[in-house]
Amino acid sequence: MEFNFYMPVRIVAGENCVRKNAALFAPFGRSALIVTGKSSARNGSLADVQAALASNGQAYAVYDQIPPNPTVGSVEEGARIAREAGASFVVAVGGGSPMDAAKAIAMLARQGSEGSIFTRAIGADVLPMVHVPTTAGTGSEVTPYAILNNDEKQTKTSISAPSLFPKIAFLDARYTQSLPRSETVNTAVDAISHAVEGMLSVRAGTLSDAVARESLHWLLGEYDALRGGELSPRSRQNLLYGATLAGIVIANTGTTPVHGMGYCLTYFHGVPHGRANGLLLPAFLRVCLRKDEARTAPVFAALGMGPAEFSDRIAALLGARETYDDATLHDYARRAAANKNVRNCAVLMEEGDLYGVFRSSVGA
Amino acid sequence: MEFNFYMPVRIVAGENCVRKNAALFAPFGRSALIVTGKSSARNGSLADVQAALASNGQAYAVYDQIPPNPTVGSVEEGARIAREAGASFVVAVGGGSPMDAAKAIAMLARQGSEGSIFTRAIGADVLPMVHVPTTAGTGSEVTPYAILNNDEKQTKTSISAPSLFPKIAFLDARYTQSLPRSETVNTAVDAISHAVEGMLSVRAGTLSDAVARESLHWLLGEYDALRGGELSPRSRQNLLYGATLAGIVIANTGTTPVHGMGYCLTYFHGVPHGRANGLLLPAFLRVCLRKDEARTAPVFAALGMGPAEFSDRIAALLGARETYDDATLHDYARRAAANKNVRNCAVLMEEGDLYGVFRSSVGA
Repeated sequence: MEFNFYMPVRIVAGENCVRKNAALFAPFGRSALIVTGKSSARNGSLADVQAALASNGQAYAVYDQIPPNPTVGSVEEGARIAREAGASFVVAVGGGSPMDAAKAIAMLARQGSEGSIFTRAIGADVLPMVHVPTTAGTGSEVTPYAILNNDEKQTKTSISAPSLFPKIAFLDARYTQSLPRSETVNTAVDAISHAVEGMLSVRAGTLSDAVARESLHWLLGEYDALRGGELSPRSRQNLLYGATLAGIVIANTGTTPVHGMGYCLTYFHGVPHGRANGLLLPAFLRVCLRKDEARTAPVFAALGMGPAEFSDRIAALLGARETYDDATLHDYARRAAANKNVRNCAVLMEEGDLYGVFRSSVGA
Repeated sequence: MEFNFYMPVRIVAGENCVRKNAALFAPFGRSALIVTGKSSARNGSLADVQAALASNGQAYAVYDQIPPNPTVGSVEEGARIAREAGASFVVAVGGGSPMDAAKAIAMLARQGSEGSIFTRAIGADVLPMVHVPTTAGTGSEVTPYAILNNDEKQTKTSISAPSLFPKIAFLDARYTQSLPRSETVNTAVDAISHAVEGMLSVRAGTLSDAVARESLHWLLGEYDALRGGELSPRSRQNLLYGATLAGIVIANTGTTPVHGMGYCLTYFHGVPHGRANGLLLPAFLRVCLRKDEARTAPVFAALGMGPAEFSDRIAALLGARETYDDATLHDYARRAAANKNVRNCAVLMEEGDLYGVFRSSVGA
């Protein structure tokens, strides 16, 4: 039994938890930068954060220009605003994009924007952060990762450091209640992918596996709701909880080539991140099972179904698929094979394997 | 779904993890105080810690005078030595007593010994700590608690603060291999008690309950080994892992009157802490079941057995029981009813209930 486990984020969950626990913001100083997307906070979350800060007498500026798939330019701009506002901490409100961008902003605000954000050593000098997710998928609220568009390499690239863990994650599923079904499905599939990929990581361990199984229990328990049933407040709670658990998994394990492959579909075609993972995951798992049955069987045990049923169920959620021609998929396989996620997978995938996954998933 | 969860300790588990990860000690500065008991480090643990520190060029002093059930005097002495040695961090090596004492020492070394350790506000100014458990029971390596003898109140009293969480817990089950069976049983029963009591806490939540169930899975899976079978390296690993999980539970939930009651048996009669809990736990659970079946039934579901079988199984582990006369038990019930653990239990226990538990558990 050999493993490392680290997840230092304080999780505060429950209805109205932001306002009820406003005092938890107080230790972070006099002035916050709230980082959010153009519309991702229109669910009560931003108002709750503002009310909590105001009740402590804390000032705040709002930077709401984070695009989906955040760019380096947007986080540099956010860092500039944080410095100008004298922000002593950052509050992220939104889905994966604002939450990831907030981490980069919290770093750049202290460390400056000189040099590539993707290659620098990230030290401990990062503004403290509080994350308030408004989607149930990314798990960014409990990870040390920020994933940004990397235009030089034409992909999405993650940066990571212990100092990028938020201090607090507030989980209030009411903020996810108004999400359209498509986004609810895409983000839930992202979370399922996190739990599954975490189990196949070279860094998987007894404890991360236990969290992954628990995560899948809650996420798959809402399958009928995702598929077309009522997305009740209870379902929203379970999905948010399951997604956060899956975030705890990848905080400790990282992801696998599924994420590296998915980045191609997102970067070049704008396929939503979770959907991109979901399109690829079933075929990826079939290759894993063929190459290393012993390592892969526990994943299907955790899913409670075999590869065919898993494919069918994910397909039913995602609907009509995007397709790409063969030359494009060869190019993407080559790109994905260069991603560091490949080395993080316990089942070693060659470029040809990745091409095969692409072709059977999104081949024309 | 309303809960708070916080467990910021980095867990590093595996055979030889201390030496393999010696670099993790390096950031804590030039000089350590190693805190241990008179004999609790004679299992390779102290030597491994010393080798790891030496490989980093870090100096250390060793304070090995922590008694079982640590006294205020012993931690004040340890703090004095830490200051004299210019220690920048503390390494705890041993069971619950050295690990708890190390937390108090790390605090007093920075904050001085003026005023009662039991009533002061514990701030953030505490030396960073690395914990190396050599028993599988206390979970102190992942909690913010230190429990010390409180002679003024004639009991054991816990102090608690977020700053008392260790930075790192190294879990190497080899250090527990040479423990005598009695101590192995007592500490395992302590861990079982932690998981069970955590599920009955007013602060229990979905996540702590999941960790508790996982903990009981591993601990009870070694029942036959504990009862008299071979305590193999694999069994030792499972017990240590289960005990750490149970520690994660109580870090978030605290304990219940079982602990407050057990302190009487330990303080006045030297009954080992885990054994004291184990003597009381089955009868305590029967009272819980009678007073609030809905709240208690999930505990028995997690145990995978009913109250009678649980009583029998714990009794078989503990052997012949200590007994005390009625006047003594009335006195202990009165003392235990004043413990803050009573208010932490979801099933409210009156003094008469506690007396009943005492009487049916250790009545003459």
